Amino acid sequence: MYLKRALLVAAAVALPTSGVLANEELMKMEKNPNEWVMPTGDYANHRYSTLKQITKDNVKNLHPVWTFSTGVLRGHEGAPLVIGNMMYVHTPFPNIVYALDLNKNGQIVWKYEPRQDPSVIPVMCCDTVNRGVAFADGKIFLAQADATLVALDAKTGKEVWKVKNGDPKKGETNTSAPQVVKDKVLVGISGGEFGVQGRMTAYNIKDGSVAWKAYSVGPDDQILFDSKTTSMGKPVGKDSSLATWQGDQWKIGGGATWGWISYDPQLNLVYYGSGNPSTWNPVQRPGDNKWSMTIFARNADTGVAKWVYQMTPHDEWDYDGINEMILADIPVKGKETKALVHFDRNGFGYTLNRDNGELLVAEKYDPKVNWATHVDMKTGRPEVVKQYSTQAGGEDHNSQNICPAALGSKDQQPAAYSPTTHLFYVPTNHVCMDYEPFKVSYTAGQPYVGATLSMYPPKGDSNLGNFIAWDAGQGKIVWSDPEPFSVWSGALATAGGVVFYGTLEGYLKAVDMQTGKELYRFKTPSGIIGNVMTYEHGGKQYIAVLSGVGGWAGIGMAAGLTKDTDGLGAVGAYKALSSYTQLGGVLTVFGLSN
Amino acid sequence: MYLKRALLVAAAVALPTSGVLANEELMKMEKNPNEWVMPTGDYANHRYSTLKQITKDNVKNLHPVWTFSTGVLRGHEGAPLVIGNMMYVHTPFPNIVYALDLNKNGQIVWKYEPRQDPSVIPVMCCDTVNRGVAFADGKIFLAQADATLVALDAKTGKEVWKVKNGDPKKGETNTSAPQVVKDKVLVGISGGEFGVQGRMTAYNIKDGSVAWKAYSVGPDDQILFDSKTTSMGKPVGKDSSLATWQGDQWKIGGGATWGWISYDPQLNLVYYGSGNPSTWNPVQRPGDNKWSMTIFARNADTGVAKWVYQMTPHDEWDYDGINEMILADIPVKGKETKALVHFDRNGFGYTLNRDNGELLVAEKYDPKVNWATHVDMKTGRPEVVKQYSTQAGGEDHNSQNICPAALGSKDQQPAAYSPTTHLFYVPTNHVCMDYEPFKVSYTAGQPYVGATLSMYPPKGDSNLGNFIAWDAGQGKIVWSDPEPFSVWSGALATAGGVVFYGTLEGYLKAVDMQTGKELYRFKTPSGIIGNVMTYEHGGKQYIAVLSGVGGWAGIGMAAGLTKDTDGLGAVGAYKALSSYTQLGGVLTVFGLSN
Repeated sequence: MYLKRALLVAAAVALPTSGVLANEELMKMEKNPNEWVMPTGDYANHRYSTLKQITKDNVKNLHPVWTFSTGVLRGHEGAPLVIGNMMYVHTPFPNIVYALDLNKNGQIVWKYEPRQDPSVIPVMCCDTVNRGVAFADGKIFLAQADATLVALDAKTGKEVWKVKNGDPKKGETNTSAPQVVKDKVLVGISGGEFGVQGRMTAYNIKDGSVAWKAYSVGPDDQILFDSKTTSMGKPVGKDSSLATWQGDQWKIGGGATWGWISYDPQLNLVYYGSGNPSTWNPVQRPGDNKWSMTIFARNADTGVAKWVYQMTPHDEWDYDGINEMILADIPVKGKETKALVHFDRNGFGYTLNRDNGELLVAEKYDPKVNWATHVDMKTGRPEVVKQYSTQAGGEDHNSQNICPAALGSKDQQPAAYSPTTHLFYVPTNHVCMDYEPFKVSYTAGQPYVGATLSMYPPKGDSNLGNFIAWDAGQGKIVWSDPEPFSVWSGALATAGGVVFYGTLEGYLKAVDMQTGKELYRFKTPSGIIGNVMTYEHGGKQYIAVLSGVGGWAGIGMAAGLTKDTDGLGAVGAYKALSSYTQLGGVLTVFGLSN
Repeated sequence: MYLKRALLVAAAVALPTSGVLANEELMKMEKNPNEWVMPTGDYANHRYSTLKQITKDNVKNLHPVWTFSTGVLRGHEGAPLVIGNMMYVHTPFPNIVYALDLNKNGQIVWKYEPRQDPSVIPVMCCDTVNRGVAFADGKIFLAQADATLVALDAKTGKEVWKVKNGDPKKGETNTSAPQVVKDKVLVGISGGEFGVQGRMTAYNIKDGSVAWKAYSVGPDDQILFDSKTTSMGKPVGKDSSLATWQGDQWKIGGGATWGWISYDPQLNLVYYGSGNPSTWNPVQRPGDNKWSMTIFARNADTGVAKWVYQMTPHDEWDYDGINEMILADIPVKGKETKALVHFDRNGFGYTLNRDNGELLVAEKYDPKVNWATHVDMKTGRPEVVKQYSTQAGGEDHNSQNICPAALGSKDQQPAAYSPTTHLFYVPTNHVCMDYEPFKVSYTAGQPYVGATLSMYPPKGDSNLGNFIAWDAGQGKIVWSDPEPFSVWSGALATAGGVVFYGTLEGYLKAVDMQTGKELYRFKTPSGIIGNVMTYEHGGKQYIAVLSGVGGWAGIGMAAGLTKDTDGLGAVGAYKALSSYTQLGGVLTVFGLSN
């Protein structure tokens, strides 16, 4: 298998390539469980592997087999890729990429360290994270913190091309992983706390030229909406975004696009979500602020939106809609459905028809969610509870005990889906907040937040997180494992009947897919905010994860903050974390005892 | 056992303590193999454990059981202590100390992070290393980089007292581990490349007051020599140091004392070595430069020297004599002897009578050593080969192919001794050099090196290190395992018949004590320059080691140097190291599979 793969990679590098080849290559590779070829595992964002050497019965015999320090402190989100005998490991700023040789316990084949102006660091709201690299066509694609998108030769680490995807001087940075779809590499933008105009850009993988660019907010020709673009089954009509903003506010209107990207090859649609409208102060920006907080289904070739759905119109809580879209064919209320499942920051788990955007299920996946009573299934709008409306009290009013907190019932940490159980395995936050909006004026490159907040567990609870199994057809929690801290790590489901995730204290945990029963835990060097992945090499299944505490939940530790009000309110709730773990990026690769 | 220990510690903290108690406590504790109570393992510097759950047969089943990132990059020398259910882990600058709970996979009980002026960093010649903390009397003793010696409450991490042991503005820093002997804590000084006047200082553990201070060079009342002090069996006479220096040069004469400290309770003698005379340019400092490059045997109560032995009179190569003194009762040439065994930087393995300093054996422990043909057993002086004398050619003359290089056939990495085999297990460097002295003038706090050098493996060899077994009674290598890089990690010998050491690429290795055959290896997150230690907890034997590449051999990586002439010549030879490992301090604790 390795040889075959190596030849394929070599061929991809050597031959004049077309987009079709790159896509066919990825479509084939994502089905090969020996590899982990894209940051999302596969296009459907399942994070499920058909590998099953590691089972419910033997997972207790799992042990680290080799480890690798990245040489970088602060938060390590994302996961490595495995292609042939090579593993590609990324780091937070300065965004080093390592190519490691799996035949040699991770010996370094090449190292790429971009030169970046460190002035980008304070322009990153929630730690200097990076969520990984993409692969296609013999190239590794890296979206650097300073918004440079670079294509590297996968064999040598040499730069093939690079382009500027944004301007840090305007608060535009990159934290998300690119995704290759057909002959294009898609990459979003971060900066919702700096008043960016969010967009998704597709670059031709051959030379980095722009294929299409689709903004989240703005005029139709910028957001790539046409007369057929629908929401809740109806055409959205002309200037659907502009109509929901006061004056020119959309130009600094946010809707950043820093989440994971999905793709349905049959429908030829790419899916992703947009983040909060800027500023966090809702009083300053009347209207629905479309299409912030929105799921986009766009044509992969043109970028034109087929359908959209806005989860949180006129956001008052920073409930970014960027969380991943999981594409699964599941029974929904008894009917086999081409579904899109999305666990939103706002605490609702949404199930939609991914072809036409029909809303099928919208239920709370944390029972403590209180800002809205429910989602109106006709309008798709949440029914906001006035007590928890941060706009209702006006500026400088402190609204209290809002659940979830700004970092949501789930944030970037991706869920997994098992086609055997039809269940979704969701790493969640169990955090509430006090929120106080205040007036803020926009200066390019300066924080444009407009609210202070503090976070804490829900009343009566001591756990800040849960790892849950979710029935997306019914909108019901099947089981729930409490965790002392937010589960900020991505999950992995496997055909061995085992689901893996990491904890902020640093444990890699394996639980029974059916029951949630803990089967194994190992304390890695630092808190885990990376995503668990698996691959097979030399006939043996391995589990790998980056540890390295940080991210928004760990920003207090990562940035050395001490005041509870620092770090967008994440310091207080997670203060105890420093009793469990310290900074440090390390990859740990696990295998079964012989 | 844990309960008993906890009570003992509690008692030690609570009761008014006397020096006798502290010493009795340590004497008892060092014999308890469940603990690792001093940085040297025991007073004899054996680094041998009677624990034997882990054997030649089952060591292949060793696996990491938990890990801990220290949150600090750069070189991690030394080893943690284990006392009761607590493990004390130190870091390089900023010299954090963690108390970890062994009952909870290393959860942090307390963390102490001193405030130090980072201007001390460039005053540290060979990375910002620290070799560990000492324990006694309910206190943890830390010698910070800035030469502050601090006593911490072992239960809480609160400062009990602190004193200045030196002045970084004069190039005085601390890298070595303190050692508690009776009611005193002994600590040396670093700064041989900055023209310090080296000394060993004994502080009363109760309050940090100075009990005695003994310089390496200077007048008798400073070096604490009396009429009975001998060398090679004869009284050294009055002003033995002053007579070997030109004018006042001794005041900036070096003889730093940054190595490990041994103690023989029956003889009541402490043993340690002194480093290079300053400057490295031998032309500038005529004379034997006594007592640089010397083994000292001093009365533990008064500091007065009983005997001394200078390995390298008038050093021309930076062959510091600071390497550890191993106290072992062994047959030497057929006669049972209270021996002191010392593997000097200069490439000779010395065996002396530790009571009277009689020189018994002096043989090369690397066959490529060429700077001297042999040691004259009557005078104790090495027979220098003129070709390799860096003084012979004068200033600005480049002497080539001198073996060993300045970092010696062994440096700080401590050897282990097994009383079962009567063999010494020695981590060695296999490195030669070109050396070019040049005139330099002294400015306080500025480098006072006076030579450039470059290092490389001996001609015809590709390995930069060997791990050897040494018969100190005969002065012979018993077996030798080549290693691609210097073995910069300390060894551990165990009653299970297994010897452990780490490699610069990051492997923890276990070899057969009898044959050197490799039995196990594990790739830890970063290169290992720490010392392997063992302890028992909850009835189970564990092996632990700090990884975190750096130190002199790894200075190129640790300090981000690129030019071969940087880092006192260590960059070139070790350049390939960056293909194997990256920076990052991580403790890995190993146990057998259940």
